[in-house]
Amino acid sequence: MQKFINDPSKVVDEMLSAYLLAHADLVSETENERVIKYINAPIEGKVGIVTGGGSGHKPAFIGYVGRNIVDAVACGELFSSPPAQMFYDAAKAADGGKGIAILYGNYAGDNMNVAMAIEELEDEGILVKKVVANDDVPSAPKGEEARRRGVAGEILMWKVGGAKAAMGANLDEVISAAQKAINNTRSMGVGLSPCTIPEVGHPNFLIPDGKMEIGIGHHGEPGIEVVDLETAAQVAQRMCDIIIPDLPFESGDEVVVLISGLGSTPAMELYILYNDVQRILKEKGINIYISYVGNYFTSLEMGGATLTLMKLDEELKACMDYECDSVGMRQFQRI
Amino acid sequence: MQKFINDPSKVVDEMLSAYLLAHADLVSETENERVIKYINAPIEGKVGIVTGGGSGHKPAFIGYVGRNIVDAVACGELFSSPPAQMFYDAAKAADGGKGIAILYGNYAGDNMNVAMAIEELEDEGILVKKVVANDDVPSAPKGEEARRRGVAGEILMWKVGGAKAAMGANLDEVISAAQKAINNTRSMGVGLSPCTIPEVGHPNFLIPDGKMEIGIGHHGEPGIEVVDLETAAQVAQRMCDIIIPDLPFESGDEVVVLISGLGSTPAMELYILYNDVQRILKEKGINIYISYVGNYFTSLEMGGATLTLMKLDEELKACMDYECDSVGMRQFQRI
Repeated sequence: MQKFINDPSKVVDEMLSAYLLAHADLVSETENERVIKYINAPIEGKVGIVTGGGSGHKPAFIGYVGRNIVDAVACGELFSSPPAQMFYDAAKAADGGKGIAILYGNYAGDNMNVAMAIEELEDEGILVKKVVANDDVPSAPKGEEARRRGVAGEILMWKVGGAKAAMGANLDEVISAAQKAINNTRSMGVGLSPCTIPEVGHPNFLIPDGKMEIGIGHHGEPGIEVVDLETAAQVAQRMCDIIIPDLPFESGDEVVVLISGLGSTPAMELYILYNDVQRILKEKGINIYISYVGNYFTSLEMGGATLTLMKLDEELKACMDYECDSVGMRQFQRI
Repeated sequence: MQKFINDPSKVVDEMLSAYLLAHADLVSETENERVIKYINAPIEGKVGIVTGGGSGHKPAFIGYVGRNIVDAVACGELFSSPPAQMFYDAAKAADGGKGIAILYGNYAGDNMNVAMAIEELEDEGILVKKVVANDDVPSAPKGEEARRRGVAGEILMWKVGGAKAAMGANLDEVISAAQKAINNTRSMGVGLSPCTIPEVGHPNFLIPDGKMEIGIGHHGEPGIEVVDLETAAQVAQRMCDIIIPDLPFESGDEVVVLISGLGSTPAMELYILYNDVQRILKEKGINIYISYVGNYFTSLEMGGATLTLMKLDEELKACMDYECDSVGMRQFQRI
């Protein structure tokens, strides 16, 4: 393993400790050492935005904790769901008395642990609702959207939910906006090379040289097929052919485009993919409103990329335009 | 090559075309297709900040073009200096009538091409000065600092020069601040794995598994030794032992810490390194003022990281605190 680590069993702890120190102007610790919060959370009278998930996806999830985005996050082990207690503690750390929106991805462990946390919070009379991201198209067929995993589209859900809450919306309005964000979002990934969890010491799956895996998941979950490596233009076409008809995205739509690297793929290649994606969208009359290209949701040093599209309306645009400050997404008020 | 590319000879062109489209709210093209500028450049009455270098280091160099940072950039081929004409055109694109500061890194090609561009600009009566970054400690011994290469410390030079210019300083003041920034900055890299230029098709150097290269350059230039892979704590200690005594950084100093991945090393490992670096600095009584951890200056998919420290004074702090907006560095006014 060509890695900068100390004890393989302590990578998450050391990373979190470093994160808190490096970004002490933005985040702070809580009584649960696996829960970190925006330095000003809880914000009195604001809906609290909570997320959580396995580690190894940086900047997700902790990178989206900050001003006008996520208030608190539960940080699991590498590629493992945080236990219910962590989601509970994250909700408490974000509770400004106006309710809690837990916005997370559709994985069995997370579903179970969030449900248990919600039960406990409700027993205490805390108003709490959830949105479950399921933007990964290849992970289940059309008609079975509820089985789909959440991937990079979660970032747009957090951005929208976080902005809506910051604008003063109540819990139902925040949940409605975040749910609309994910309902309007479709993603998919293409894998080029695997990653290694330090405690395991070898890759958890293999992609042979000269091949690529279509529809790979964020933890190396098998995709829909392994095919010969193609050009960026062909990869972009494949991604668009899967994502666009699924919603469907149509001529005249305005969209957010998010291309995230999975870890080791250089930004140059992400931009080359973007070049082909924007051309395909243009040919279809789909208009790009905002673009994000970079490492927004990774899987350690996995090679490959995800494409995410979100269809916008006026409410979603206003949320996307809203100022926010976090390590993973920092933007000035647009327009 | 597990890469998302089309024509290996057109990677830079496609990347630049995509970059202009993806970030059209921040950057725009110029008459020279290899020169891109901040959308509002040239800014009348402001010193223009110009840089340039080979491509493949994203977000450097184009990622630092934006508001209150770099005004225009010359984009060479992968790992190759832009020709003199590009530096000249970048300077023209940034010329707001108050002079031009060309802030770039110490490489033979860049030195030659910047010198030729300056000669031509001066012939036209344009006021132009330069600062040459030489922050890479292992690239030449103490006493021969002028031979050292520029690496990730260039980012801090751009940040300081860009802020100073935005504050309304004249050319001499901008050059003086940028020169102080780089004089107060020391960097070094440790390589874990090589990268491949698409047109070449194979790695331009090798690092055997289980080994690491101390002092590797941003283009795979040989370091000072290849040793057995060590723990993150040992790597951090090595880096600090080389960087800290060179300036020297001393007890009571306030510093910027910048840990940049070289491309494929996950953010988690950069934070683990940070954890050890901050501990070592604390033990020495050196205080961290701002920290940056992430992919700030890469070398395609090279594995490894660089550590950069900059010693601050009140002027440099004010520049580092200043608001800026670019893809590679976006921050709200601090303090």
